[in-house]
Amino acid sequence: MTDPFWQQPLPHPSRPYYDRALARQQQLTKPPGSLGQLETLACRLCAQQNRDRPSVDRVYIAVFAGDHGIAADGVSAFPQEVTAQMVANFANGGAAISVLARQLDATLEVINMGVAHPLPDDRGVINEWIAAGTGNLMQEAAMTAGQLEMALEAGDRAAERASQDGAELFIGGDMGIGNTTSASALASLLLGARVEELVGPGTGLDELGVARKARRIRAALERHGNERDPFHALASLGGFEIAALAGALIGAAHRGIPVLVDGFIVTAAALAATHLSPDLMQWLHFSHQSREPGHRTLLEAMGATPILDLDMRLGEGSGAAVAVPVLRSACALHNEMATFAEAGVSDG
Amino acid sequence: MTDPFWQQPLPHPSRPYYDRALARQQQLTKPPGSLGQLETLACRLCAQQNRDRPSVDRVYIAVFAGDHGIAADGVSAFPQEVTAQMVANFANGGAAISVLARQLDATLEVINMGVAHPLPDDRGVINEWIAAGTGNLMQEAAMTAGQLEMALEAGDRAAERASQDGAELFIGGDMGIGNTTSASALASLLLGARVEELVGPGTGLDELGVARKARRIRAALERHGNERDPFHALASLGGFEIAALAGALIGAAHRGIPVLVDGFIVTAAALAATHLSPDLMQWLHFSHQSREPGHRTLLEAMGATPILDLDMRLGEGSGAAVAVPVLRSACALHNEMATFAEAGVSDG
Repeated sequence: MTDPFWQQPLPHPSRPYYDRALARQQQLTKPPGSLGQLETLACRLCAQQNRDRPSVDRVYIAVFAGDHGIAADGVSAFPQEVTAQMVANFANGGAAISVLARQLDATLEVINMGVAHPLPDDRGVINEWIAAGTGNLMQEAAMTAGQLEMALEAGDRAAERASQDGAELFIGGDMGIGNTTSASALASLLLGARVEELVGPGTGLDELGVARKARRIRAALERHGNERDPFHALASLGGFEIAALAGALIGAAHRGIPVLVDGFIVTAAALAATHLSPDLMQWLHFSHQSREPGHRTLLEAMGATPILDLDMRLGEGSGAAVAVPVLRSACALHNEMATFAEAGVSDG
Repeated sequence: MTDPFWQQPLPHPSRPYYDRALARQQQLTKPPGSLGQLETLACRLCAQQNRDRPSVDRVYIAVFAGDHGIAADGVSAFPQEVTAQMVANFANGGAAISVLARQLDATLEVINMGVAHPLPDDRGVINEWIAAGTGNLMQEAAMTAGQLEMALEAGDRAAERASQDGAELFIGGDMGIGNTTSASALASLLLGARVEELVGPGTGLDELGVARKARRIRAALERHGNERDPFHALASLGGFEIAALAGALIGAAHRGIPVLVDGFIVTAAALAATHLSPDLMQWLHFSHQSREPGHRTLLEAMGATPILDLDMRLGEGSGAAVAVPVLRSACALHNEMATFAEAGVSDG
């Protein structure tokens, strides 16, 4: 009996490719370090892709959707039907992530992990349906151990499809009314942090709504105890889409595909995934700082430097998609700039 | 006798187009405001372009190069020959801005405003040469009033070429060894701010070098007095490329072309330009926060919110070029996302 995929050791990015990339950056016609984060990004991509000339032309975006039992308790500004409606909107090309995927010439897939309401249109949606939403985490575990395994494996299958598609960069996105409640609870447990540091308005709660949401999360944490085992935490507090994201990130790393992490929900999934598989951090780039206030706590706890800070708070993978061109610029500069010697420029 | 172009009133972006764009943003399938700065950018572009569906597909990048008499005083980590060498590198496609312009499918032009050394190769370089570098601002005015007028008009001609090219967005870039010294002096005078708040390492001075540079700037400011007239300030302390940039930004606004401002040098030019032509601010987007420390002082004084903060400090227009895809994403989302009604999604 082999270990499940999320317990198997991950490959390591290549140190020799990293060192060669760093040496090349010192030779390009610019003051050393003057491209800032673009230099670091290019070097990390070289190491992850085992290449001297990195590329993120081929981008794979997998959006996982699932519903949350806790949504019945009024923790969102939108009704639960919106999860199903937005899944159809993703597939029909009208959502933010649909527009951005087209602009990037990226592959976009939408996966139904456990939407509660019938989809108005299921064409183009991959079916990995587990149940009509998770259990209400104030009263019971969000999911069983068996359901969690199914969700993690569904994420791994998305990573395999990305690999078959020739993906040079993997982006996971989320959709699920109520999922900031689940993500805040999960992060609070795994970080041992106060709920106040991780709760926020989500899609648009007012101050009273946020306070009510915080009380719900505290109640859930009291019910499920403070054991920081990531498998237990995901089963107790997670969402099907959050667990699938954790599986997809680990699966992408297993296949040598760098990951561009989106906002609050995907970062919470990444946190759980790094608890399952600590070497995962070497494969992650963090795309943006969300306006959801808990995201800062999460990123700082993970030691992550986000690429963008544009006050976005939409989810769907949209923040990561907006950051892709920064990675593409980093690659183009690394690959195409002349060296001091090639251009006949004095190097100071 | 008509006023020179920089004293003529600027057109105003359209308030009705702005209001219509804002109303559309509330109808797109996302929580209101959840695209953050992308929403503001799209609305401002609609107003500037007098369009319901903004576009920055056609980008015009003009890089102005000039040398500085103060470079003889050891204020840079690189020798003055590098200005001429880099101009050839821009035109030959090996510099950062050359790579980024290709990636954006942008028009790139390079303008010799006053390079001191012979160009190794002048093919593809537009000749607006005024003199072999400015005067050393510790000893004399950087340029005469007549030279300043020539530089401003050369900038306006670049804006006219951009307009003829169908530009939907104008980017100015800079090259000139010693030009952070000029920009710091200019900004210090125009803002009435302490030199310490505006001086920095430029291409890579160490701490002692920065202290020496600050002493040079203080000496120049003492010599030229503290009259904040922008024409006097540009003539006393500016560079040919900085004055041309000021002219180009005003010229672009006159032709209804929004401007994406690059880093420290272009922001200093924009500051001088807004003193010449206060309504200019309505036409400017600020692309990034440079690592050059004085840039923060400048942006804050201008009330500007930069789009990116990637620790870049290269100049050439490179920070603006890296930010273009963010504007393109903002346009695509504004133009292509479905509304709640179109997608059949409940709007909360």
